[in-house]
Amino acid sequence: MSKKITIGVMGPGDKATESDIQLGFELGKLIAEEGWVLLSGGRNAGVMDSVNKGAKSANGLTVGIIPRPTDGISDAVDLVIMTDMGSARNNINVLSSDVVISCGVGAAGTASEIALTLKAKKHVILLNESPEGQAYFKKIGKDLVYLATNPQGAIAITKELLVGKGYNRSERG
Amino acid sequence: MSKKITIGVMGPGDKATESDIQLGFELGKLIAEEGWVLLSGGRNAGVMDSVNKGAKSANGLTVGIIPRPTDGISDAVDLVIMTDMGSARNNINVLSSDVVISCGVGAAGTASEIALTLKAKKHVILLNESPEGQAYFKKIGKDLVYLATNPQGAIAITKELLVGKGYNRSERG
Amino acid sequence: MSKKITIGVMGPGDKATESDIQLGFELGKLIAEEGWVLLSGGRNAGVMDSVNKGAKSANGLTVGIIPRPTDGISDAVDLVIMTDMGSARNNINVLSSDVVISCGVGAAGTASEIALTLKAKKHVILLNESPEGQAYFKKIGKDLVYLATNPQGAIAITKELLVGKGYNRSERG
Amino acid sequence: MSKKITIGVMGPGDKATESDIQLGFELGKLIAEEGWVLLSGGRNAGVMDSVNKGAKSANGLTVGIIPRPTDGISDAVDLVIMTDMGSARNNINVLSSDVVISCGVGAAGTASEIALTLKAKKHVILLNESPEGQAYFKKIGKDLVYLATNPQGAIAITKELLVGKGYNRSERG
Repeated sequence: MSKKITIGVMGPGDKATESDIQLGFELGKLIAEEGWVLLSGGRNAGVMDSVNKGAKSANGLTVGIIPRPTDGISDAVDLVIMTDMGSARNNINVLSSDVVISCGVGAAGTASEIALTLKAKKHVILLNESPEGQAYFKKIGKDLVYLATNPQGAIAITKELLVGKGYNRSERG
Repeated sequence: MSKKITIGVMGPGDKATESDIQLGFELGKLIAEEGWVLLSGGRNAGVMDSVNKGAKSANGLTVGIIPRPTDGISDAVDLVIMTDMGSARNNINVLSSDVVISCGVGAAGTASEIALTLKAKKHVILLNESPEGQAYFKKIGKDLVYLATNPQGAIAITKELLVGKGYNRSERG
Repeated sequence: MSKKITIGVMGPGDKATESDIQLGFELGKLIAEEGWVLLSGGRNAGVMDSVNKGAKSANGLTVGIIPRPTDGISDAVDLVIMTDMGSARNNINVLSSDVVISCGVGAAGTASEIALTLKAKKHVILLNESPEGQAYFKKIGKDLVYLATNPQGAIAITKELLVGKGYNRSERG
Repeated sequence: MSKKITIGVMGPGDKATESDIQLGFELGKLIAEEGWVLLSGGRNAGVMDSVNKGAKSANGLTVGIIPRPTDGISDAVDLVIMTDMGSARNNINVLSSDVVISCGVGAAGTASEIALTLKAKKHVILLNESPEGQAYFKKIGKDLVYLATNPQGAIAITKELLVGKGYNRSERG
């Protein structure tokens, strides 16, 4: 089996705050340091851009699932998957990730990705989510939903979830 | 222009409560009585089934956007759109509806459809939503989100939204 | 069962010839006269436009599966299914049709729809196809491929195929 | 720009001949030796499997765009993009490839990918295609269609096409 461990990070583009963007960079860097592949929405905006830049700062491998050909693509994406299917591609983002981490508050696209992750009965880790978002997703997702207070915490939860999926602790992507 | 007014109703399948199912039936009936086309997820379960049955009880026209060929389809669906793309079809549901109404609490698929509606900057009416869901979607969707306490209320809001979209008050689907 | 018989007509938009367009109109008219629903790509160009106009001239019901929101939509489409997924929607066109008829020569989009019909192991009727197209699709599709020399012939083959699918001869859409 | 050159190879799964499978292996190996990323349908059958094995035999990087979760995946795929959208994913295959090479005769899925490549106005190289397929795709695709008689020839054409797309001759994926 050649398959590499792939961690999806979902977060806002144009609506991202400075805090979202900085957390995204740090998260991408930590993912790459673990040897995992980073998967994201791949646009050159907000968390989508910063998480890829963070991963490349640690020589990670990055995959971007792009909504459509007219979108700007982050310079830090290695592998461009061009879907040309707009927000319908959000379901591909979550299905292609071994673990999904959301980073940031209040964007509808990210909200749909969290919900689609739960629909697929997969785990999601919420980083920097609003109290309202935490309450709602905990209500509908129950044990599938984890809360992280910083990127290091998100990585720690990810490691535990990967062990639960049968990946060995020493295994690298 | 032949285009008929199309109202999308999104709601749970297997997770629907008795209350969700009854509200769905009534909502479908009222939509058909207005002369509007009903669009739904089209499966033979929960709100998806009851809303179509309601619409057919008033001789409405019903369209079902089906996730995949192995899904059971509601007997009350006139036009079967077979997507074979699982939850990625949720985006088609909302983009094809002039107004989107969600009916019911706590299913992840419906949550993704509400979020995708907001992502497309379209209005959504929440019927029978949980307090947590109301708080969260109001936070991220603001003026795009309406709350209805019963099917009649959802229809009244829909009428106002259609006028805002340039449909004449006397126009029928 | 409310499900209506749905016939998909696939044909070129901007590349359509006058002959393609006239055959499309006649084909749409005949489909509506049989009481079947017409499904097409729904754009306001070429065969996609004329086949819908033909169907409406006989008071038929028409469904358009639209590639993306910026596309012009035929005035003769009753039900607009907005996919926002470009050519990936071609697979929905063929999966949603009880029988698929292609009308016209030499457009790549139509070629993909014929191939996707065969991939789904469904029948396709080629009307006004080039000799090269007839030879190729007969080679890869064998018994799934029918050739029609005029719209009346395509309707006659469609009737036989519908009987083979268990629709009663007297059944109307 | 981190973006790596990505070459898509489309070919039959269960319908592949021994010749198709051997050519696929050799083609994958040559693609990896050029330093390009290999993109394919990713299933563990026919050309999809052999082309990935060829690429891994030369330490290449491989991406598989998988139709649905129940499909078997080639052991030689590094990055699994799970679409869950059946043949609609064929459009993603071609849009995500800098150059598309088809390998093998007579499978409807591959035929749809060649047609979708032409619809997107992208180049396609036909390797081991039937005379009927060559004649048909030349007719509808004209200058976008190249014929190769062996994997080395397909690689030579690919190099020329990449230069035409602005990639430097010495650039590696």
